[in-house]
Order: sequence, then C-alpha cells, then structure tokens
Amino acid sequence: MPEALAQLKTRLDDVSNLNSANGLLGWDQQTMMPEGGDETRAGQSSTLSRLSHEIFSAPQTGALLDTAAAETVSLPYDHNDSALLRIVQRDYERAVRVPSELVAEISRTAALAHGAWVQARAENRFDLFAPWLEKIVEMNRRLAEAIGYSDHIYDALLDQFEPGMTAADVTAMFADLKREVVPMIAHISQHQDRASDDVLHRFYAEATQEAFTLRLARGYGFDFNRGRQDRAVHPFCQSMSPDDVRITTRYDEHFLQVALFGTLHETGHALYEQGVSHDLHPFLGSGTSLGVHESQSRLWENVVGRSRGFWKRFYPDLQAAFPDSLGNVDLETFYRAVNTSKPSLIRVEADEVTYNMHTMLRFEIECDLLTGALSVADAPAAWNAKMQAYLGITPPSDTLGILQDVHWSGAMLGYFPTYTIGNLLSAQLYEAATRAVPSIPADVAAGKFDTLLGWLRENIHQHGRKYLPQELIKRATGEPLNSRAYIAYLRGKYGDIYGF
Amino acid sequence: MPEALAQLKTRLDDVSNLNSANGLLGWDQQTMMPEGGDETRAGQSSTLSRLSHEIFSAPQTGALLDTAAAETVSLPYDHNDSALLRIVQRDYERAVRVPSELVAEISRTAALAHGAWVQARAENRFDLFAPWLEKIVEMNRRLAEAIGYSDHIYDALLDQFEPGMTAADVTAMFADLKREVVPMIAHISQHQDRASDDVLHRFYAEATQEAFTLRLARGYGFDFNRGRQDRAVHPFCQSMSPDDVRITTRYDEHFLQVALFGTLHETGHALYEQGVSHDLHPFLGSGTSLGVHESQSRLWENVVGRSRGFWKRFYPDLQAAFPDSLGNVDLETFYRAVNTSKPSLIRVEADEVTYNMHTMLRFEIECDLLTGALSVADAPAAWNAKMQAYLGITPPSDTLGILQDVHWSGAMLGYFPTYTIGNLLSAQLYEAATRAVPSIPADVAAGKFDTLLGWLRENIHQHGRKYLPQELIKRATGEPLNSRAYIAYLRGKYGDIYGF
Repeated sequence: MPEALAQLKTRLDDVSNLNSANGLLGWDQQTMMPEGGDETRAGQSSTLSRLSHEIFSAPQTGALLDTAAAETVSLPYDHNDSALLRIVQRDYERAVRVPSELVAEISRTAALAHGAWVQARAENRFDLFAPWLEKIVEMNRRLAEAIGYSDHIYDALLDQFEPGMTAADVTAMFADLKREVVPMIAHISQHQDRASDDVLHRFYAEATQEAFTLRLARGYGFDFNRGRQDRAVHPFCQSMSPDDVRITTRYDEHFLQVALFGTLHETGHALYEQGVSHDLHPFLGSGTSLGVHESQSRLWENVVGRSRGFWKRFYPDLQAAFPDSLGNVDLETFYRAVNTSKPSLIRVEADEVTYNMHTMLRFEIECDLLTGALSVADAPAAWNAKMQAYLGITPPSDTLGILQDVHWSGAMLGYFPTYTIGNLLSAQLYEAATRAVPSIPADVAAGKFDTLLGWLRENIHQHGRKYLPQELIKRATGEPLNSRAYIAYLRGKYGDIYGF
Repeated sequence: MPEALAQLKTRLDDVSNLNSANGLLGWDQQTMMPEGGDETRAGQSSTLSRLSHEIFSAPQTGALLDTAAAETVSLPYDHNDSALLRIVQRDYERAVRVPSELVAEISRTAALAHGAWVQARAENRFDLFAPWLEKIVEMNRRLAEAIGYSDHIYDALLDQFEPGMTAADVTAMFADLKREVVPMIAHISQHQDRASDDVLHRFYAEATQEAFTLRLARGYGFDFNRGRQDRAVHPFCQSMSPDDVRITTRYDEHFLQVALFGTLHETGHALYEQGVSHDLHPFLGSGTSLGVHESQSRLWENVVGRSRGFWKRFYPDLQAAFPDSLGNVDLETFYRAVNTSKPSLIRVEADEVTYNMHTMLRFEIECDLLTGALSVADAPAAWNAKMQAYLGITPPSDTLGILQDVHWSGAMLGYFPTYTIGNLLSAQLYEAATRAVPSIPADVAAGKFDTLLGWLRENIHQHGRKYLPQELIKRATGEPLNSRAYIAYLRGKYGDIYGF
C-alpha cells in the first residue's frame, strides 16, 4: 500500500475507534448505566469526542491527505481507496473550518438548553425556552457561516446530516408533498369511519410481544451474532461496526404498535449497518446519511411491515400469539388498524400520510428563524398556524406544539428534513427493487425477505459511506431522490383504505 | 488553584476518562457484547490504551508536574493535591522508563500466547505453551530492567500490581505462612470427617439464589443507584468511577458456593470503589493496589461471610429460601460445609487454609524463572514437586497443574502474591476494626454491617490511591502488613473445626 495512504488509514483507525467507543458509551448510558453514572459518562464522552476531533482535524491529516491523493491518482473512481480519500477530504475541509471554541460553545449550550427545555415542556412555558432557542439559532448561524454555503444558510446545516442536499432540494420536495398530501389529509379527516386502531389498544403481554417481534427481526435478517436488542425509553439503533449493531425497543402492553413497529423500524436501521462491506475502512463503515438510514427503517417498518402481503403471512401467527385480543379480529380490520391515518399533534406518533407535514412545518420555521424572517417570540404562533393549514388542527398548548421535539434543545438545526427524505426514499427504493426483482412482493407475502434484503445489500448497504447520498440514490434507482414513488405509494394504499 | 496544577489536572482528566471508558469496553465485552464484536473491540481498546499512555507519558506531563510541585510545595503532606502530585510523579517516572515498543510487543505477544495457552490446556500439552512462556519471561526481564530495581528483579514487576512491595517482603510473608500452614494442612488432611461440603451440591434454583445474594449485597451496603450486577463466565468487578461500579456473577444450580460467595466477594471489591472520596481527582479515584483490593473482597466474602455469627443471622433465611435442600441441615453442618478445607489442585477453588500455598508456589517459580535458576522446560516438574511438598498432592496432568492459570498467558508476572496480601490483610483489617469498634462481631451477627463498613470507609475506602499500600495499611492498623492476624484467624476457625 502507498505509504501516505497507509499512514492516513492508521490515523483514521484512531478516529473510528474513538467514535465507535463513544457510540458504546452512548448505548450504555441509555440501556445499562446506573443513574449515578451520568457525570462520569459526560466526562468520558467529552474526552473521546474532543480527541477524535483533534486527531482528525490536525494539520498532519491534511498533509497525509495531499500526499495520499497524489499516490492514488491513477486508481479508478469506484476504488475503495479513492472513495475513502474523497470522503475524508470532504469531512476534513468541514472539520477545519469550524473553530473548536464554537464546537465547545455549542456543546455546553446544548447541555444547559436541554434542562431548560425539559422544564419548559413540563410547565408549558415557551418563554423559559425562548432565550435558549435565540442563542441556538444565533450559534447555528455562526456555524453555518464558518462552514460556508453558496446559496441558502440552511444548506450548511443540512449538510451535516444529509451531505450534498440543499434547502432548494428540500423546498422542492416539500412543495410536491404539500400539493398532493394536504388534500389527501382533508379527505381522510372526513372519512375516519373507514379505519380504527382500537384493537391495538387491547392487552398484549410483554413477553409474548418480545418473542413475536424478535422472530420478525430474525426473519428480516438481523444477525444476533453481530448484534443484540435491549430496552430503552427512547428506542434507537447504535452501530459500533458491522459486527456489533445494537437495537433497542420499549413495550406498551396496551398499545401493540409501539414495540411491534418500533422493532421493525430499528431492525431496518440495523440491517443497513450489518450489511456494510468489511472491505471498507471503518471510517466509511456506516450508513451514508440520516436520510438514507431512515429509508431503510421506514422501508422495513412501513412499506414491508404494514403491507397487506406481510400480514396475510403473519397475521394468523399474531392471532395465535394473542388469541384473547385478536381472536375475533379479521385480517382486514387489523390491516386497517395498523394503517389508520388521522391528523394528530405529535410528530413521533404520526402516520405515514400526515408525518411529512410535521417535518415540513419544522423545516419552514427553521429556515425563517435562520434568515430572520421569523423571530423566536413569534415562532409558537407560526407553528400553530401551519398546523392548522397543513393538518387542520391547532395545538391546545406549546407542550403539544412547538416544545415537543428534543432536537432544538440539542442545538441541532437542519435535521428534520432527513425524516422525510427517508420516507420518500423508502418507496423509491422499494419500487426500484421490485423492478429489478419482480418476485419481491410475492416473496414478502410468503415471509421470505432475502430477495429484498439481497437487493438492498447490493445497492445500498454494502457501500456504507463510500458514495454521497444523492450519488448512491442515483446508482441504486436510476433517478435522483424524488417524491413520485412515495406519493404513488400513499395514493395506492390510503386511496384503497379511505376511498379516494 | 495554581495554574500548572489546574492544567495538570485537566490533562489527567483525559487520562482518567480514557481509562475508565476502556474499563467500560472491557465490562461490555464480558457481559453484553455479541460474539462478532471481538475484533472491533480489540481495536477500540488498543486505541484508548495507547492514547492514554501517550498523553500521560508525554514531556508536557513532566513539565507540568515540575511546575505544579513548585506551586504546591507549602501544602501539607496529607492534602489531596500533594498526594496527587506524589502518585502522578511515581507513575510518570515508571511510564517514561518503559519503551512504547516493549509495551506494544508485550501486548501483541499476550494476544497470541493466550490462544496457545487455551490450546495447550485443552490438549494437556505444556510443550505448546513453553515457547511462549520463554518469550514472556524474557520480555518481563526486559521490562523489569527498563523499570529498574535495587534488590531483586521481581521487585520491578510486583510494583506494577502492589506499589512499594518487594520480593523480600513477599518472601518473608510466605516463610511465616509456610511454617504455620503446612502443618495445619497435614492435620486437616487426616481429619476430613470433621466437615463436608456435600450439602452445597444439592439443587439451588438460580432465581432464588439471585434474590438471596442480591439481598446480601444490598445488606452489605452495595448502592445499586451507583452500580449494577450482571452475569459473566469469569466474575469480576469493574469500576468506572465511585458512581458507576459494576459486579458480575455466575450461577451453578448444583453448587451453592459459586454465586453466594462469589457475589459477597465482588461486593467487597465494589464497596471499596463506591467508597472512594469524590474529593479526590479521578486519577486517584480507585483502589490503591490489587492486594488491598483483595483484602476487601476476602474480608466480606470470608472473614464476615463465612463466619458463624453471619450464618446465625442468615441461615434461617437461607433455609426458608431453599427448604427442600436445607430444611434438614442444621446450622453447624452448614457452617462447616462453607468452611470445608481440603488440599486440592486448582487455586481458584481452594479454601482459606490451602489457598496461599498455591500462590506461594507460583511466586517461587516466577522468581526462579526470572533469575534463570529454573528453566521453562523444568517448570512443570518443579510445580508438581512443590504441590506435593506444600499440599501433599501431585497433579495428574499439566492441565490441572502448571497450565491452570490465565495470568502468564497474559504476559503478566508478579501478580500472584497480591492474592495472599489480600488474605493476610483481610484478617489484619478486621482485627483493627474490631479493636476500634468492639461491637462489630455482634453487629455482624445481627445483620448490621454499617459499623464495619463505616470503619473501612474511614480508614481504607475514602483514600482511593492517595496513599501507597504499605502507608495506608500502617495508618489503618498501626503496623505493617504481616501474617499474624491471618494465622491467628486460621488457627481459631479451623482449629475449632478440625480439632487442632
């Protein structure tokens, strides 16, 4: 191996090891750590983050990058080493632009703002959080200016979570959705008698839920020799490497949906991480963006896991597992229960049709806060007006409105569009997969998932961070990210249920 | 705070955070990690170890130490900052003397030797491990020369685990034990009818064992808000800080001893770590040596947990928990069952009387290997001869003899005497505690442990690494470490059981 490239890889080994060790600290904190361990954990995590950033953004990294680029100039574009140098170069340029004092300031502010947000939410007092939000918007402006952007200030922030995506792309994406989905929602609101999730609120014993959902996760292809599942209050997936991927879930014995679809969702994330090629350097050894990640979780949770074919195969098993609660419920009633749509106040509880209106609203408010078109003081009213316009409902309190999400209190702006990117892409990828392997829908209805997983492994998972999201999407589906497949998916599925 | 001292502390924060994060990686590996995670974990752990060593042994640390020493010259000896500078200076001088190439060579060799040892042990073929043991002895000679010593080469190695203790100290300690204990063992061997552990091999359901042992751990004072217990194949205690201390155990439903006394043992370690003062810098925030640590585990496991007073209080509860297995067993039979002594082949299964003969044998062999008085080829025969001389039995195979311990395969020489230091010190400390607080034996017999724990907290736990072991022992008991109390303890307890 060329010498500078080898040295660069050794250096990146340290960065990857620090980051994945930090990932384990985070997993442990949410699943295992005794409550007294908070302060120790904060110190450990902060040291590992800082050392990782110092090693990565040091001038030696830049010098090795330059020499390694010269050494490898003749390698083809698709070679793993070419890709590594491209991605490292991109990350490095970003990392050196952000002053470490600003990183530290953001991190400190987030720690304090989180507490203020918890209190503001508990007491329904936006005014307690408002000064923090002002500060967070101001810091994110400085962050965006440090990173740089050519068009919209939002571009620099979004790029942290969805590399290469711009505010203009997102605006176009939401414009399509708004045009198509707002009328669907209005129609669905008038036809609530067509579906109900009442049966999901019967009694479902936790141990039986666990056995059933773990069986589905295994059936999807989750490899428990390279992963595990635990309980967490806020479920998530944490990957240390393709060989150690951990999902979490929580159980509600009076709402089947929580653990059942939560587990399918996290399994989707985990399949992505477990499918990354071992040939890639660990620096490229995870999902390429939050949006592409969310496409995997939503594909396995919704496009597959809430499909009629899937439940034709598994509903008799579910009935057998819960005879008291589901013995007298027919397949169609259950199918409609898990696909009930209804405008609601809380994003994380929203269904497939209404979900993207929640993220669109946040995107629009974030843009306006960053450009100054909207003041923090006016933000609650703006939130409520948009809720009324898109979903036809108005939050009765800020706790159920603008104070509901944790993200801003973590000093993160630019994150929300990735949820909708994931939703759109889940349908776009499923469409491309079934075009390439037409047996997939029948396979799913037979409980056979390897054809779909094989296509995703080949076209998405194995590449890890080798390609930027838009490049990966184009290679996999032949077209850029767009809303056509998702809108067609909604129209087909919900048109059938709600009669439009 | 003086400026150089503050900067030094910040630097040491990183070292402590890296080390305690690495501790968590180790805990996770033995309790939670999926099997596929091995390679990733090795990389993470190696990066964290190396960065910790690099930061600690860098010239900047030395420069800050010098300036901070000048800044704090007027502080009293017992001030936490004086102690911090003393201990850091001692560790620093050691760290800079060891070439990092040698550290890396030892670490690489250990990884390979471990596999060879596993195979050698499985196949009872010492010849497969012999070349590795040659290499390990040779590397440890180089390590000892690098560290330096004034008297015996063993001193430099022992100092890694028991700072300040020398081969001469250990030789004197074992001479006392040999003189007193070998005749006891000979007598006990002739009176095996006086006690039997047969009743411990009846059926004990795991869940009941768990509930009972956790209750005892809580009763001792283990704070589960700052710790937890999990299962592990080889039980251990891992502390991340006084606020996050984790113990592990394993269950054998046909041998009550394993989980019961294993839990009391690990709880003893945990009480030490949970009792370290929060006023100390985290660099001093753990037990001061392996020997002092073992004194805590052995005190709570044996001196308290196998005492007649303890079982007077708890045996009725144990009988109630296991009526089928213990309903017809009286207290005295049970007391003798948990205090049965018998010469045996395996160190980790040995009782209080015979245990130290196992460590003495290893110490003698290690010394002779290091000085060259014994060749690796002749070591198995030496082992067997010593087993016959001290315990009156000869191992039927090397697997049950010289190949039984993992330590040498980990490239560690100088470790074994710390087990015996712990045993001696457990009795010496208990004697000092009861001298200061005469109600302790009666309190134990009433299930009240706070008087004993309070004395240990005050005299041992709170000080963490603030004092070197010998200094701490002298302060706590008024005399240096010695075998008198332990021999008196054995004589009293086993003389009573076995009639000598």
